Amino acid sequence: MAENVSEFKVEFGETDMAGIVFYPNYFRWFDRSTHALLESINLPFLGLMEDQNLTVPLVNVGCRFLSPLRYNDKLRLVTKVVEVKERTFKLEHKLYKDEKLVGEGFEVRVLIKTDQQTEQGGLVTTNFPPEIAERLIK
Amino acid sequence: MAENVSEFKVEFGETDMAGIVFYPNYFRWFDRSTHALLESINLPFLGLMEDQNLTVPLVNVGCRFLSPLRYNDKLRLVTKVVEVKERTFKLEHKLYKDEKLVGEGFEVRVLIKTDQQTEQGGLVTTNFPPEIAERLIK
Amino acid sequence: MAENVSEFKVEFGETDMAGIVFYPNYFRWFDRSTHALLESINLPFLGLMEDQNLTVPLVNVGCRFLSPLRYNDKLRLVTKVVEVKERTFKLEHKLYKDEKLVGEGFEVRVLIKTDQQTEQGGLVTTNFPPEIAERLIK
Amino acid sequence: MAENVSEFKVEFGETDMAGIVFYPNYFRWFDRSTHALLESINLPFLGLMEDQNLTVPLVNVGCRFLSPLRYNDKLRLVTKVVEVKERTFKLEHKLYKDEKLVGEGFEVRVLIKTDQQTEQGGLVTTNFPPEIAERLIK
Repeated sequence: MAENVSEFKVEFGETDMAGIVFYPNYFRWFDRSTHALLESINLPFLGLMEDQNLTVPLVNVGCRFLSPLRYNDKLRLVTKVVEVKERTFKLEHKLYKDEKLVGEGFEVRVLIKTDQQTEQGGLVTTNFPPEIAERLIK
Repeated sequence: MAENVSEFKVEFGETDMAGIVFYPNYFRWFDRSTHALLESINLPFLGLMEDQNLTVPLVNVGCRFLSPLRYNDKLRLVTKVVEVKERTFKLEHKLYKDEKLVGEGFEVRVLIKTDQQTEQGGLVTTNFPPEIAERLIK
Repeated sequence: MAENVSEFKVEFGETDMAGIVFYPNYFRWFDRSTHALLESINLPFLGLMEDQNLTVPLVNVGCRFLSPLRYNDKLRLVTKVVEVKERTFKLEHKLYKDEKLVGEGFEVRVLIKTDQQTEQGGLVTTNFPPEIAERLIK
Repeated sequence: MAENVSEFKVEFGETDMAGIVFYPNYFRWFDRSTHALLESINLPFLGLMEDQNLTVPLVNVGCRFLSPLRYNDKLRLVTKVVEVKERTFKLEHKLYKDEKLVGEGFEVRVLIKTDQQTEQGGLVTTNFPPEIAERLIK
Protein backbone atom coordinates (compact mmCIF):
# COMPACT_ATOMS: atom_id res chain seq x y z
CA MET A 1 0.00 0.00 0.00
CA ALA A 2 0.97 3.64 -0.23
CA GLU A 3 4.01 4.72 1.80
CA ASN A 4 5.89 7.94 2.57
CA VAL A 5 9.36 8.38 4.06
CA SER A 6 10.64 11.71 5.32
CA GLU A 7 13.72 12.82 7.17
CA PHE A 8 13.99 15.86 9.42
CA LYS A 9 15.63 17.16 12.55
CA VAL A 10 13.97 18.14 15.83
CA GLU A 11 13.64 21.93 15.96
CA PHE A 12 14.52 24.05 18.99
CA GLY A 13 10.94 25.30 19.22
CA GLU A 14 9.63 21.73 19.37
CA THR A 15 11.28 21.12 22.74
CA ASP A 16 9.89 22.12 26.12
CA MET A 17 11.52 23.09 29.39
CA ALA A 18 12.11 19.43 30.23
CA GLY A 19 14.54 19.42 27.30
CA ILE A 20 12.61 16.89 25.23
CA VAL A 21 10.07 17.20 22.41
CA PHE A 22 6.67 18.51 23.53
CA TYR A 23 4.51 15.58 22.53
CA PRO A 24 1.76 17.23 20.42
CA ASN A 25 4.52 17.88 17.88
CA TYR A 26 4.67 14.19 17.06
CA PHE A 27 1.17 14.56 15.64
CA ARG A 28 2.18 17.59 13.58
CA TRP A 29 4.86 15.36 12.06
CA PHE A 30 2.37 12.56 11.45
CA ASP A 31 -0.10 14.94 9.81
CA ARG A 32 2.60 16.38 7.58
CA SER A 33 3.66 12.92 6.53
CA THR A 34 0.09 11.87 5.77
CA HIS A 35 -0.32 14.90 3.52
CA ALA A 36 2.89 14.07 1.69
CA LEU A 37 1.74 10.47 1.27
CA LEU A 38 -1.59 11.55 -0.20
CA GLU A 39 0.15 13.91 -2.55
CA SER A 40 2.56 11.22 -3.68
CA ILE A 41 -0.34 9.00 -4.79
CA ASN A 42 -1.98 11.87 -6.61
CA LEU A 43 -4.61 12.55 -3.94
CA PRO A 44 -3.56 16.04 -2.91
CA PHE A 45 -5.56 17.59 -0.08
CA LEU A 46 -6.14 20.79 -2.00
CA GLY A 47 -7.38 18.96 -5.04
CA LEU A 48 -9.69 16.82 -2.93
CA MET A 49 -11.04 19.88 -1.13
CA GLU A 50 -11.35 22.27 -4.01
CA ASP A 51 -12.27 19.97 -6.86
CA GLN A 52 -14.35 17.33 -5.11
CA ASN A 53 -15.38 18.91 -1.78
CA LEU A 54 -13.81 16.01 0.06
CA THR A 55 -11.43 15.86 2.97
CA VAL A 56 -10.15 13.24 5.42
CA PRO A 57 -10.29 14.33 9.07
CA LEU A 58 -9.18 12.14 11.95
CA VAL A 59 -11.48 9.85 13.87
CA ASN A 60 -8.92 8.08 16.01
CA VAL A 61 -5.24 8.54 16.70
CA GLY A 62 -2.60 7.21 19.04
CA CYS A 63 1.11 7.19 19.72
CA ARG A 64 3.54 5.25 21.87
CA PHE A 65 6.70 7.07 22.89
CA LEU A 66 9.66 4.71 23.18
CA SER A 67 12.58 7.09 23.64
CA PRO A 68 12.77 10.79 24.41
CA LEU A 69 13.69 13.06 21.53
CA ARG A 70 15.92 16.09 21.86
CA TYR A 71 16.84 19.17 19.84
CA ASN A 72 18.63 18.38 16.59
CA ASP A 73 17.92 14.65 16.75
CA LYS A 74 17.82 13.40 13.18
CA LEU A 75 14.64 11.46 12.54
CA ARG A 76 13.19 9.27 9.84
CA LEU A 77 9.41 8.91 9.68
CA VAL A 78 7.87 6.05 7.72
CA THR A 79 4.14 6.33 7.09
CA LYS A 80 2.11 3.55 5.50
CA VAL A 81 -1.52 2.97 4.64
CA VAL A 82 -2.26 -0.29 6.46
CA GLU A 83 -6.02 -0.61 6.04
CA VAL A 84 -8.69 0.74 3.70
CA LYS A 85 -12.38 0.30 4.53
CA GLU A 86 -15.49 1.69 2.88
CA ARG A 87 -15.22 5.16 4.40
CA THR A 88 -12.09 5.09 6.52
CA PHE A 89 -8.44 4.28 6.14
CA LYS A 90 -5.70 3.68 8.65
CA LEU A 91 -2.14 4.92 8.55
CA GLU A 92 0.76 3.65 10.60
CA HIS A 93 3.64 5.96 11.51
CA LYS A 94 7.02 4.65 12.59
CA LEU A 95 9.61 7.11 13.80
CA TYR A 96 13.28 6.15 13.82
CA LYS A 97 16.42 7.74 15.21
CA ASP A 98 19.61 6.08 14.05
CA GLU A 99 17.68 3.02 12.87
CA LYS A 100 16.13 2.63 16.34
CA LEU A 101 12.35 2.83 16.66
CA VAL A 102 11.63 5.76 19.00
CA GLY A 103 7.89 6.21 18.48
CA GLU A 104 5.00 4.58 16.68
CA GLY A 105 1.59 5.95 16.00
CA PHE A 106 -1.50 5.50 13.92
CA GLU A 107 -4.22 7.63 12.41
CA VAL A 108 -7.69 6.53 11.31
CA ARG A 109 -9.19 9.02 8.87
CA VAL A 110 -12.64 9.20 7.37
CA LEU A 111 -13.76 10.57 4.03
CA ILE A 112 -16.22 13.45 4.40
CA LYS A 113 -17.95 15.98 2.20
CA THR A 114 -16.83 19.52 2.98
CA ASP A 115 -19.94 21.07 1.44
CA GLN A 116 -22.39 19.25 3.69
CA GLN A 117 -23.13 19.15 7.40
CA THR A 118 -25.60 17.16 9.47
CA GLU A 119 -28.39 19.12 11.12
CA GLN A 120 -26.28 19.18 14.29
CA GLY A 121 -23.28 20.60 12.44
CA GLY A 122 -21.57 17.22 12.28
CA LEU A 123 -19.51 15.71 9.49
CA VAL A 124 -21.16 13.89 6.59
CA THR A 125 -19.13 10.81 5.71
CA THR A 126 -19.09 9.18 2.30
CA ASN A 127 -17.73 6.04 0.60
CA PHE A 128 -14.38 6.22 -1.14
CA PRO A 129 -14.88 6.61 -4.86
CA PRO A 130 -13.16 3.61 -6.51
CA GLU A 131 -10.35 5.72 -7.97
CA ILE A 132 -9.43 6.97 -4.51
CA ALA A 133 -9.61 3.56 -2.85
CA GLU A 134 -7.39 2.14 -5.59
CA ARG A 135 -4.68 4.69 -5.03
CA LEU A 136 -4.64 4.13 -1.27
CA ILE A 137 -4.45 0.36 -1.68
CA LYS A 138 -1.96 0.15 -4.52
CA MET B 1 -9.14 9.82 42.11
CA ALA B 2 -7.78 13.24 41.20
CA GLU B 3 -9.82 15.24 38.67
CA ASN B 4 -9.55 18.56 36.85
CA VAL B 5 -12.25 20.47 34.98
CA SER B 6 -11.47 23.41 32.69
CA GLU B 7 -13.52 25.50 30.32
CA PHE B 8 -12.19 27.33 27.30
CA LYS B 9 -13.06 28.37 23.77
CA VAL B 10 -11.48 27.22 20.53
CA GLU B 11 -9.03 29.88 19.34
CA PHE B 12 -8.81 31.14 15.77
CA GLY B 13 -5.20 29.97 15.51
CA GLU B 14 -6.21 26.44 16.53
CA THR B 15 -8.21 25.96 13.33
CA ASP B 16 -6.83 24.95 9.94
CA MET B 17 -7.91 25.70 6.40
CA ALA B 18 -10.59 23.00 6.60
CA GLY B 19 -12.28 25.24 9.17
CA ILE B 20 -11.97 22.79 12.06
CA VAL B 21 -9.48 22.37 14.89
CA PHE B 22 -6.07 21.09 13.76
CA TYR B 23 -5.91 17.89 15.76
CA PRO B 24 -2.53 18.17 17.56
CA ASN B 25 -4.14 20.98 19.52
CA TYR B 26 -6.32 18.47 21.36
CA PHE B 27 -3.14 17.14 22.92
CA ARG B 28 -2.01 20.63 23.93
CA TRP B 29 -5.34 20.92 25.77
CA PHE B 30 -4.87 17.51 27.39
CA ASP B 31 -1.34 18.38 28.50
CA ARG B 32 -2.49 21.69 29.96
CA SER B 33 -5.26 19.94 31.86
CA THR B 34 -2.88 17.31 33.21
CA HIS B 35 -0.59 20.04 34.51
CA ALA B 36 -3.51 21.77 36.20
CA LEU B 37 -4.61 18.48 37.74
CA LEU B 38 -1.14 17.80 39.14
CA GLU B 39 -0.96 21.29 40.53
CA SER B 40 -4.38 20.94 42.18
CA ILE B 41 -3.19 17.91 44.15
CA ASN B 42 -0.02 19.67 45.18
CA LEU B 43 2.24 17.91 42.70
CA PRO B 44 3.30 20.88 40.61
CA PHE B 45 5.57 20.09 37.67
CA LEU B 46 8.05 22.77 38.62
CA GLY B 47 8.28 21.52 42.18
CA LEU B 48 8.73 17.97 40.99
CA MET B 49 11.43 18.99 38.53
CA GLU B 50 13.32 21.46 40.62
CA ASP B 51 13.01 20.00 44.10
CA GLN B 52 13.00 16.30 43.37
CA ASN B 53 14.44 15.95 39.84
CA LEU B 54 11.32 14.08 38.78
CA THR B 55 9.03 14.50 35.80
CA VAL B 56 6.27 12.53 34.12
CA PRO B 57 6.66 12.25 30.34
CA LEU B 58 4.23 10.38 28.12
CA VAL B 59 4.59 6.75 27.16
CA ASN B 60 1.28 6.26 25.40
CA VAL B 61 -1.49 8.54 24.25
CA GLY B 62 -4.63 8.39 22.17
CA CYS B 63 -7.71 10.32 21.16
CA ARG B 64 -11.00 9.61 19.45
CA PHE B 65 -12.62 12.53 17.65
CA LEU B 66 -16.40 12.35 17.78
CA SER B 67 -17.47 15.73 16.38
CA PRO B 68 -15.55 18.44 14.58
CA LEU B 69 -14.72 21.55 16.58
CA ARG B 70 -14.81 25.04 15.19
CA TYR B 71 -13.59 28.51 16.13
CA ASN B 72 -15.18 29.86 19.29
CA ASP B 73 -16.78 26.57 20.29
CA LYS B 74 -17.08 26.59 24.06
CA LEU B 75 -15.56 23.44 25.51
CA ARG B 76 -15.39 21.71 28.86
CA LEU B 77 -12.52 19.30 29.46
CA VAL B 78 -12.74 16.78 32.30
CA THR B 79 -9.49 15.01 33.16
CA LYS B 80 -9.29 12.17 35.68
CA VAL B 81 -6.60 9.89 37.00
CA VAL B 82 -8.05 6.45 36.26
CA GLU B 83 -5.15 4.15 37.12
CA VAL B 84 -1.98 4.32 39.20
CA LYS B 85 0.67 1.61 38.89
CA GLU B 86 4.16 1.37 40.36
CA ARG B 87 5.81 3.73 37.90
CA THR B 88 3.03 4.87 35.59
CA PHE B 89 -0.38 6.47 35.85
CA LYS B 90 -3.18 6.86 33.37
CA LEU B 91 -5.34 9.90 32.77
CA GLU B 92 -8.62 10.01 30.91
CA HIS B 93 -9.69 13.18 29.10
CA LYS B 94 -13.30 13.82 28.14
CA LEU B 95 -14.11 16.84 26.03
CA TYR B 96 -17.64 18.23 25.96
CA LYS B 97 -19.39 20.85 23.87
CA ASP B 98 -22.83 21.76 25.17
CA GLU B 99 -22.93 18.64 27.35
CA LYS B 100 -22.22 16.46 24.29
CA LEU B 101 -19.07 14.33 24.29
CA VAL B 102 -17.01 15.48 21.28
CA GLY B 103 -13.68 13.81 22.00
CA GLU B 104 -12.09 11.42 24.46
CA GLY B 105 -8.47 10.71 25.03
CA PHE B 106 -6.02 9.17 27.42
CA GLU B 107 -2.45 9.66 28.50
CA VAL B 108 -0.16 7.15 30.20
CA ARG B 109 2.72 8.88 31.95
CA VAL B 110 5.76 7.43 33.66
CA LEU B 111 7.77 8.83 36.55
CA ILE B 112 11.39 9.50 35.60
CA LYS B 113 14.46 11.07 37.14
CA THR B 114 15.54 14.19 35.27
CA ASP B 115 19.09 14.03 36.60
CA GLN B 116 19.82 10.58 35.21
CA GLN B 117 20.01 9.00 31.77
CA THR B 118 20.69 5.48 30.62
CA GLU B 119 23.93 4.89 28.73
CA GLN B 120 21.96 5.25 25.49
CA GLY B 121 20.48 8.59 26.56
CA GLY B 122 17.17 7.03 27.52
CA LEU B 123 14.89 7.86 30.43
CA VAL B 124 15.45 6.36 33.87
CA THR B 125 12.11 5.42 35.41
CA THR B 126 11.46 5.17 39.11
CA ASN B 127 8.72 4.05 41.51
CA PHE B 128 6.26 6.62 42.80
CA PRO B 129 7.23 7.71 46.28
CA PRO B 130 4.26 6.88 48.56
CA GLU B 131 3.32 10.54 49.07
CA ILE B 132 2.98 11.04 45.31
CA ALA B 133 0.99 7.86 44.74
CA GLU B 134 -1.37 8.83 47.55
CA ARG B 135 -2.17 12.18 46.00
CA LEU B 136 -2.85 10.67 42.59
CA ILE B 137 -5.13 8.01 44.06
CA LYS B 138 -7.03 10.09 46.58
CA MET C 1 -10.68 53.36 21.62
CA ALA C 2 -11.53 49.67 21.96
CA GLU C 3 -9.57 47.72 24.57
CA ASN C 4 -9.30 44.15 25.80
CA VAL C 5 -7.73 42.81 28.99
CA SER C 6 -7.04 39.13 29.55
CA GLU C 7 -5.23 37.16 32.22
CA PHE C 8 -3.61 33.79 31.76
CA LYS C 9 -0.68 31.68 32.85
CA VAL C 10 2.26 30.48 30.77
CA GLU C 11 1.67 26.85 29.78
CA PHE C 12 4.29 24.12 30.00
CA GLY C 13 4.10 23.54 26.25
CA GLU C 14 4.83 27.20 25.57
CA THR C 15 8.35 26.90 26.99
CA ASP C 16 11.40 25.61 25.16
CA MET C 17 14.52 23.80 26.32
CA ALA C 18 16.05 27.10 27.45
CA GLY C 19 13.31 27.15 30.10
CA ILE C 20 11.64 30.32 28.81
CA VAL C 21 8.67 30.98 26.53
CA PHE C 22 9.35 30.14 22.87
CA TYR C 23 8.77 33.55 21.34
CA PRO C 24 6.25 32.84 18.55
CA ASN C 25 3.80 32.12 21.36
CA TYR C 26 3.67 35.83 22.21
CA PHE C 27 2.01 36.35 18.85
CA ARG C 28 -0.50 33.58 19.50
CA TRP C 29 -1.44 35.51 22.66
CA PHE C 30 -1.65 38.79 20.74
CA ASP C 31 -3.84 37.24 18.06
CA ARG C 32 -6.16 35.71 20.67
CA SER C 33 -6.47 39.05 22.40
CA THR C 34 -7.23 40.86 19.15
CA HIS C 35 -10.02 38.38 18.43
CA ALA C 36 -11.48 38.91 21.90
CA LEU C 37 -11.28 42.66 21.42
CA LEU C 38 -13.11 42.49 18.10
CA GLU C 39 -15.76 40.29 19.60
CA SER C 40 -16.23 42.65 22.54
CA ILE C 41 -17.09 45.51 20.18
CA ASN C 42 -19.48 43.34 18.23
CA LEU C 43 -17.15 42.73 15.31
CA PRO C 44 -16.70 38.98 15.64
CA PHE C 45 -14.35 37.37 13.14
CA LEU C 46 -16.85 34.71 12.20
CA GLY C 47 -19.57 37.26 11.58
CA LEU C 48 -17.22 39.37 9.49
CA MET C 49 -16.12 36.36 7.46
CA GLU C 50 -19.40 34.62 7.01
CA ASP C 51 -21.84 37.49 6.76
CA GLN C 52 -19.76 40.11 5.03
CA ASN C 53 -16.84 38.21 3.44
CA LEU C 54 -14.40 40.41 5.30
CA THR C 55 -11.36 39.61 7.40
CA VAL C 56 -8.41 41.49 8.86
CA PRO C 57 -5.05 39.83 8.22
CA LEU C 58 -1.74 41.25 9.43
CA VAL C 59 0.44 43.55 7.40
CA ASN C 60 3.01 44.44 10.03
CA VAL C 61 3.81 43.19 13.49
CA GLY C 62 6.49 43.59 16.11
CA CYS C 63 7.38 42.80 19.68
CA ARG C 64 9.99 43.85 22.20
CA PHE C 65 10.84 41.32 24.91
CA LEU C 66 11.72 43.00 28.19
CA SER C 67 11.90 40.07 30.61
CA PRO C 68 11.98 36.34 30.09
CA LEU C 69 8.78 34.46 30.87
CA ARG C 70 8.68 31.06 32.49
CA TYR C 71 6.18 28.26 33.04
CA ASN C 72 3.24 29.24 35.22
CA ASP C 73 4.04 32.97 35.16
CA LYS C 74 0.75 34.79 35.60
CA LEU C 75 0.32 37.38 32.87
CA ARG C 76 -2.02 40.24 32.05
CA LEU C 77 -2.31 41.31 28.44
CA VAL C 78 -3.79 44.71 27.59
CA THR C 79 -4.67 45.24 23.94
CA LYS C 80 -5.83 48.58 22.57
CA VAL C 81 -6.77 49.96 19.20
CA VAL C 82 -4.41 52.93 18.86
CA GLU C 83 -4.98 54.02 15.27
CA VAL C 84 -7.68 53.60 12.62
CA LYS C 85 -7.00 54.57 9.01
CA GLU C 86 -9.06 54.08 5.87
CA ARG C 87 -8.22 50.43 5.39
CA THR C 88 -5.94 49.54 8.28
CA PHE C 89 -5.95 49.72 12.03
CA LYS C 90 -3.21 49.36 14.61
CA LEU C 91 -3.34 47.51 17.88
CA GLU C 92 -0.93 47.84 20.77
CA HIS C 93 -0.29 44.92 23.11
CA LYS C 94 1.20 45.38 26.57
CA LEU C 95 2.08 42.30 28.58
CA TYR C 96 2.48 42.55 32.34
CA LYS C 97 3.73 40.18 35.00
CA ASP C 98 3.07 41.39 38.54
CA GLU C 99 2.38 44.92 37.27
CA LYS C 100 5.76 44.97 35.51
CA LEU C 101 5.83 45.43 31.75
CA VAL C 102 7.53 42.35 30.32
CA GLY C 103 6.72 42.71 26.63
CA GLU C 104 5.10 45.11 24.23
CA GLY C 105 3.99 44.54 20.72
CA PHE C 106 1.86 45.90 17.93
CA GLU C 107 -0.17 44.62 15.03
CA VAL C 108 -1.25 46.49 11.92
CA ARG C 109 -4.18 44.79 10.23
CA VAL C 110 -5.88 45.52 6.95
CA LEU C 111 -9.48 44.98 5.93
CA ILE C 112 -9.80 42.58 3.00
CA LYS C 113 -12.53 40.84 1.06
CA THR C 114 -12.38 37.08 1.47
CA ASP C 115 -14.35 36.43 -1.69
CA GLN C 116 -11.95 38.25 -4.00
CA GLN C 117 -8.33 37.86 -5.05
CA THR C 118 -6.09 39.86 -7.32
CA GLU C 119 -5.02 38.18 -10.54
CA GLN C 120 -1.77 37.19 -8.81
CA GLY C 121 -3.66 35.59 -5.90
CA GLY C 122 -3.09 38.59 -3.65
CA LEU C 123 -5.42 40.14 -1.11
CA VAL C 124 -8.04 42.70 -2.13
CA THR C 125 -8.20 45.46 0.48
CA THR C 126 -11.24 47.62 1.09
CA ASN C 127 -12.25 50.69 3.11
CA PHE C 128 -13.78 50.21 6.53
CA PRO C 129 -17.56 50.55 6.32
CA PRO C 130 -18.53 53.42 8.66
CA GLU C 131 -20.17 51.11 11.20
CA ILE C 132 -16.96 49.12 11.57
CA ALA C 133 -14.71 52.17 11.85
CA GLU C 134 -17.00 53.61 14.51
CA ARG C 135 -16.76 50.56 16.70
CA LEU C 136 -12.98 50.44 16.47
CA ILE C 137 -12.66 54.10 17.33
CA LYS C 138 -15.27 54.35 20.05
CA MET D 1 28.30 38.26 7.17
CA ALA D 2 26.84 34.86 7.99
CA GLU D 3 23.88 33.74 5.89
CA ASN D 4 21.48 30.80 5.74
CA VAL D 5 19.13 29.78 2.93
CA SER D 6 16.39 27.20 3.40
CA GLU D 7 13.54 25.97 1.24
CA PHE D 8 10.31 24.47 2.50
CA LYS D 9 6.62 24.23 1.79
CA VAL D 10 3.74 25.61 3.84
CA GLU D 11 2.22 22.79 5.88
CA PHE D 12 -1.50 22.13 6.21
CA GLY D 13 -1.33 22.65 9.97
CA GLU D 14 0.26 26.07 9.48
CA THR D 15 -2.91 27.46 7.90
CA ASP D 16 -5.95 28.76 9.73
CA MET D 17 -9.64 28.86 8.85
CA ALA D 18 -9.09 31.93 6.67
CA GLY D 19 -7.08 29.63 4.39
CA ILE D 20 -3.77 31.46 4.86
CA VAL D 21 -0.77 30.91 7.13
CA PHE D 22 -1.46 31.71 10.80
CA TYR D 23 1.12 34.42 11.34
CA PRO D 24 3.01 33.22 14.44
CA ASN D 25 4.32 30.45 12.20
CA TYR D 26 6.48 32.97 10.32
CA PHE D 27 8.44 33.39 13.54
CA ARG D 28 8.82 29.63 13.95
CA TRP D 29 10.40 29.65 10.48
CA PHE D 30 12.65 32.59 11.37
CA ASP D 31 13.79 30.91 14.58
CA ARG D 32 14.53 27.66 12.75
CA SER D 33 16.55 29.54 10.17
CA THR D 34 18.51 31.42 12.83
CA HIS D 35 19.42 28.12 14.48
CA ALA D 36 20.57 26.69 11.17
CA LEU D 37 22.64 29.80 10.52
CA LEU D 38 24.34 29.58 13.92
CA GLU D 39 25.08 25.93 13.36
CA SER D 40 26.54 26.62 9.92
CA ILE D 41 29.10 28.99 11.43
CA ASN D 42 29.99 26.51 14.14
CA LEU D 43 28.01 28.23 16.89
CA PRO D 44 25.47 25.53 17.60
CA PHE D 45 22.86 26.36 20.22
CA LEU D 46 23.45 23.15 22.12
CA GLY D 47 27.19 23.71 22.25
CA LEU D 48 26.69 27.28 23.40
CA MET D 49 24.24 26.20 26.09
CA GLU D 50 25.95 23.09 27.34
CA ASP D 51 29.61 23.96 26.98
CA GLN D 52 29.60 27.68 27.67
CA ASN D 53 26.28 28.36 29.45
CA LEU D 54 25.38 30.92 26.81
CA THR D 55 22.27 31.45 24.76
CA VAL D 56 20.81 34.16 22.53
CA PRO D 57 17.17 35.03 23.31
CA LEU D 58 15.20 37.66 21.44
CA VAL D 59 14.96 41.27 22.51
CA ASN D 60 13.13 42.67 19.52
CA VAL D 61 11.44 41.19 16.50
CA GLY D 62 9.23 42.28 13.64
CA CYS D 63 7.73 41.17 10.37
CA ARG D 64 5.99 42.74 7.41
CA PHE D 65 3.58 40.53 5.48
CA LEU D 66 3.53 41.37 1.79
CA SER D 67 1.46 38.55 0.30
CA PRO D 68 -0.71 35.88 1.88
CA LEU D 69 0.73 32.39 1.98
CA ARG D 70 -1.29 29.25 1.42
CA TYR D 71 -0.93 25.52 1.93
CA ASN D 72 1.82 23.94 -0.15
CA ASP D 73 3.31 27.27 -1.24
CA LYS D 74 6.99 26.66 -1.88
CA LEU D 75 9.10 29.16 0.02
CA ARG D 76 12.71 30.22 0.20
CA LEU D 77 13.92 31.92 3.37
CA VAL D 78 17.15 33.90 3.33
CA THR D 79 18.52 34.85 6.75
CA LYS D 80 21.51 37.13 7.20
CA VAL D 81 23.39 38.62 10.11
CA VAL D 82 23.24 42.34 9.34
CA GLU D 83 24.67 43.88 12.50
CA VAL D 84 26.87 42.78 15.41
CA LYS D 85 27.20 44.95 18.50
CA GLU D 86 28.90 44.28 21.84
CA ARG D 87 26.13 42.13 23.27
CA THR D 88 23.49 41.93 20.55
CA PHE D 89 23.26 40.96 16.92
CA LYS D 90 20.59 41.54 14.31
CA LEU D 91 19.33 39.10 11.74
CA GLU D 92 17.29 39.92 8.66
CA HIS D 93 14.86 37.37 7.21
CA LYS D 94 13.59 37.59 3.65
CA LEU D 95 10.92 35.17 2.54
CA TYR D 96 10.38 34.51 -1.17
CA LYS D 97 7.76 32.66 -3.15
CA ASP D 98 8.66 32.19 -6.80
CA GLU D 99 11.37 34.86 -6.55
CA LYS D 100 8.83 37.37 -5.19
CA LEU D 101 9.39 38.83 -1.74
CA VAL D 102 6.35 37.85 0.34
CA GLY D 103 7.55 38.72 3.84
CA GLU D 104 10.49 40.32 5.59
CA GLY D 105 11.38 40.25 9.20
CA PHE D 106 14.17 40.86 11.66
CA GLU D 107 15.34 39.54 14.99
CA VAL D 108 17.60 41.24 17.51
CA ARG D 109 19.15 38.75 19.88
CA VAL D 110 21.27 39.27 22.95
CA LEU D 111 23.97 37.06 24.43
CA ILE D 112 23.12 35.90 27.95
CA LYS D 113 24.51 33.54 30.55
CA THR D 114 22.16 30.63 31.23
CA ASP D 115 23.71 29.90 34.63
CA GLN D 116 23.02 33.35 36.07
CA GLN D 117 19.94 35.43 36.84
CA THR D 118 19.49 38.91 38.20
CA GLU D 119 17.95 39.21 41.65
CA GLN D 120 14.59 39.79 39.94
CA GLY D 121 14.94 36.64 37.84
CA GLY D 122 15.99 38.61 34.77
CA LEU D 123 18.53 37.72 32.13
CA VAL D 124 22.23 38.48 32.62
CA THR D 125 23.71 39.74 29.37
CA THR D 126 27.36 39.46 28.44
CA ASN D 127 29.76 40.64 25.72
CA PHE D 128 30.41 38.40 22.77
CA PRO D 129 33.69 36.56 23.22
CA PRO D 130 35.90 37.52 20.25
CA GLU D 131 35.68 34.07 18.65
CA ILE D 132 31.88 34.30 18.58
CA ALA D 133 31.80 37.85 17.23
CA GLU D 134 34.23 36.85 14.49
CA ARG D 135 32.07 34.02 13.28
CA LEU D 136 28.96 36.19 13.15
CA ILE D 137 30.74 38.93 11.24
CA LYS D 138 32.76 36.85 8.82
